[in-house]
Amino acid sequence: MADDKALTTRAADFSAWYNELIAKAELADYSPVRGCMVIRPNGYAIWEEMQKALDKMFKDTGHQNAYFPLFIPQSFLSKEAEHVEGFAPETAVVTHGGGKLLEEPLVVRPTSETIIYAMFAKWVQSYRDLPLLINQWANVVRWEMRTRLFLRTTEFLWQEGHTAHATEAEAEAETLQMLGVYRKFAEEWMAMPVLTGRKTDSERFAGALRTYAIEALMQDNKALQAGTSHNLGQNFAKAFDVTFQTAAGGVDHVWSTSWGVSTRLIGGLIMTHGDDNGMICPPRLAQYQIVIVPIWRKDEERDQVIQKSNEIRDELRTAGIRVHVDGREGMKPGAKYYEWEARGVPFRFEIGPRDITNGVVTMKRRTGGEKEALPFAGLAVAMQRQIDAMQADMLRAAKERREANSVRGATKAVLIEKMKGDGGGGFVYGGFCGGATCEAEIKAETKATIRVLPDPEFQSPEKPTTCLWCGKPSVAEAVWAKAY
Amino acid sequence: MADDKALTTRAADFSAWYNELIAKAELADYSPVRGCMVIRPNGYAIWEEMQKALDKMFKDTGHQNAYFPLFIPQSFLSKEAEHVEGFAPETAVVTHGGGKLLEEPLVVRPTSETIIYAMFAKWVQSYRDLPLLINQWANVVRWEMRTRLFLRTTEFLWQEGHTAHATEAEAEAETLQMLGVYRKFAEEWMAMPVLTGRKTDSERFAGALRTYAIEALMQDNKALQAGTSHNLGQNFAKAFDVTFQTAAGGVDHVWSTSWGVSTRLIGGLIMTHGDDNGMICPPRLAQYQIVIVPIWRKDEERDQVIQKSNEIRDELRTAGIRVHVDGREGMKPGAKYYEWEARGVPFRFEIGPRDITNGVVTMKRRTGGEKEALPFAGLAVAMQRQIDAMQADMLRAAKERREANSVRGATKAVLIEKMKGDGGGGFVYGGFCGGATCEAEIKAETKATIRVLPDPEFQSPEKPTTCLWCGKPSVAEAVWAKAY
Repeated sequence: MADDKALTTRAADFSAWYNELIAKAELADYSPVRGCMVIRPNGYAIWEEMQKALDKMFKDTGHQNAYFPLFIPQSFLSKEAEHVEGFAPETAVVTHGGGKLLEEPLVVRPTSETIIYAMFAKWVQSYRDLPLLINQWANVVRWEMRTRLFLRTTEFLWQEGHTAHATEAEAEAETLQMLGVYRKFAEEWMAMPVLTGRKTDSERFAGALRTYAIEALMQDNKALQAGTSHNLGQNFAKAFDVTFQTAAGGVDHVWSTSWGVSTRLIGGLIMTHGDDNGMICPPRLAQYQIVIVPIWRKDEERDQVIQKSNEIRDELRTAGIRVHVDGREGMKPGAKYYEWEARGVPFRFEIGPRDITNGVVTMKRRTGGEKEALPFAGLAVAMQRQIDAMQADMLRAAKERREANSVRGATKAVLIEKMKGDGGGGFVYGGFCGGATCEAEIKAETKATIRVLPDPEFQSPEKPTTCLWCGKPSVAEAVWAKAY
Repeated sequence: MADDKALTTRAADFSAWYNELIAKAELADYSPVRGCMVIRPNGYAIWEEMQKALDKMFKDTGHQNAYFPLFIPQSFLSKEAEHVEGFAPETAVVTHGGGKLLEEPLVVRPTSETIIYAMFAKWVQSYRDLPLLINQWANVVRWEMRTRLFLRTTEFLWQEGHTAHATEAEAEAETLQMLGVYRKFAEEWMAMPVLTGRKTDSERFAGALRTYAIEALMQDNKALQAGTSHNLGQNFAKAFDVTFQTAAGGVDHVWSTSWGVSTRLIGGLIMTHGDDNGMICPPRLAQYQIVIVPIWRKDEERDQVIQKSNEIRDELRTAGIRVHVDGREGMKPGAKYYEWEARGVPFRFEIGPRDITNGVVTMKRRTGGEKEALPFAGLAVAMQRQIDAMQADMLRAAKERREANSVRGATKAVLIEKMKGDGGGGFVYGGFCGGATCEAEIKAETKATIRVLPDPEFQSPEKPTTCLWCGKPSVAEAVWAKAY
């Protein structure tokens, strides 16, 4: 049962609000294992809806699911030089199995490139075997020092796509295609607007040629990296000797990609839409899009309102809408409203004897506004329209908030000013010289990092000419933010 | 690409046949990690269909999915005395994380009772919080000495249900309900008939009060334990102090259950239905229920047959049938037939120019029989009927094979005779005194173990009166078999 204390407000303490919301909505819980979380049914149901939507998009773009081992021989990690440097320090290591010391320790996968390329080397012989388009839904482990529910946990759930191609151009096209899939998912399902673009070398995946990302702005003006797509070039193919006979009769290493999103997205959902009463879940990802609360005083009323509620539920379900009737006894309607509000259910129906007499349900939106009476007749059509409208409104509102907290053509002074203090942040666009020294200095002084070198669609109308930090010529516009 | 060597026949070497089939159908592969397998896309697609069907059945019976940590503090395992004895010898142990020696080693979950009951203790306060009906889809690790693809691997995928109840009777009812769900799934989806019944104490889950199982008979006459459901009594509740306030105002420990099936089921599917040409997948679990092979000689024919094939695919898909068009260029139809046969696709359509002229598709069943010409008109209805018929026929055939290899009212001599040699086996029904000594002697002499004390439906019309081994009074009929 959710507790009934009010949440700390976002304005008072965003971080406390986030943790309390997760507890109150029963989305997740701390476990007795350091840095590991339990995803409770309310949270897992959101992950299932996310999986369903993403999995369909992956399959529609020709990918197939497979499953690779949890354990990776420690020596595999070392085969790609940058990769081991990036991941070795944060691995969990199995040294004993079946009561005996292992000859070679096994690393619990932090990501699966190495074990997957070892298999690709067996499977790929000829250009006819390409492209090889694989996805895996799995748990991974990274030994993080500071953890936060959903955002950064020692173990997390994710999907990792791994593909091999005959040419560099195909690999690049795949990398960008999947970035586009992630963007579409973030915007159309999560109602979370994102910037897309390339990462600088210092933020690149360990072992990749190029890393692209989707970046969203949370309500506390910090950025969340919500998904990444990597063009791995031939780095892993060379490390694991994944070669193929080309159509022309030669031999070449494959060109490969990897891309992933994780349960971190649930954190993004909370911090994009939640309010001081709790979660607000966009309708397309809600376990229940509508919860019906039947209201009665006397027993004979009870049967009538429950029956009508069930009828309406069944009618809406037939139309593909996810509906739940909360018929719990011994609990006041107000307590139910409060609980479903905290959980973020998009729409609530109240159905009492008078509603039945009037032939209407009383509908309340989680996003605010007055209650509305909707006639029984044509309810499914009306609600589908409501669902689509709320989904679109949530995206629009989040986009407006992001733009209100973005500054273009920033100078050094503006960047420093924007990032100041705990409340500081937002997306700051400015010129960048491409130098790692500037990046490091900016991070040290403002805590902001370059989230992306934005794709053309997101670039400013006026192209910056000089680096906002050092004043040298700008090689690309960059977007800075403090990040989770 | 599947290799094109014929399989070793089942009669010649069942075990070689099994391994070769898995390689040829590209269901799974050995990994470089000891005892761990890679589930390839063809195999994983079956697992996805299994998950979809089971998950729906779990939700229809009121369960919710959640996710618990992969790691379990070593001390947790020891809290239930039988449990640690059963599982500690086969665990993988993480001793280092983030480059440092851990204060307490972490066990990679072999099953999740202990970590889950630690959480239940936090969540359950009152009888109002009960029943708590949780399921988890996850990977688990058991350090097995001898491994076989799908049947016994160090890491495997499974689901584990964990429920807590206010009374012993409710827990027992839940245990039996889920046994029933497993039976329904095995029979109606896998077309794999099973016996249901209780395990003897020596085959009981470590920590359970009572273990029930579904047991199937493979084509080599060995039994496969295909799913288990455990009434855990108050054992884990006491070990983890999961108490609740009763409706009467007292305090009690919860009564709990756990139940699971795993990727082992894919091995069961292969060994129940496969033939010397490869896998035969029951239609309800097939990734593709129909594969259409368009046949053409000249380029102008190609466009026509591909177009018609796609039309038919779309029409059948609209009717909810899973169809794939194999339009690969540069590959002869015969080679395609051979490949899809090995993968076990239930129905094949051939569509050539003459078929189009005649307004028919040429249909071939994977289970045998002549090709049939089916008119385009009414194809979806006709194929839904074919699918239902094949599904029913496969179950019937498997049931007949099982019954033909079962002996009732066996004596000691019959049991020994039936189990003799590599080809020996089958289900042997006989009286059992209930003594662990008889069980151990039988196992030592015949390699057979008691698979179940069968439920009434499976018991013999004539109740055995004496133990077939020692001659003392029988306390229950038992079913012996050699087992995987």
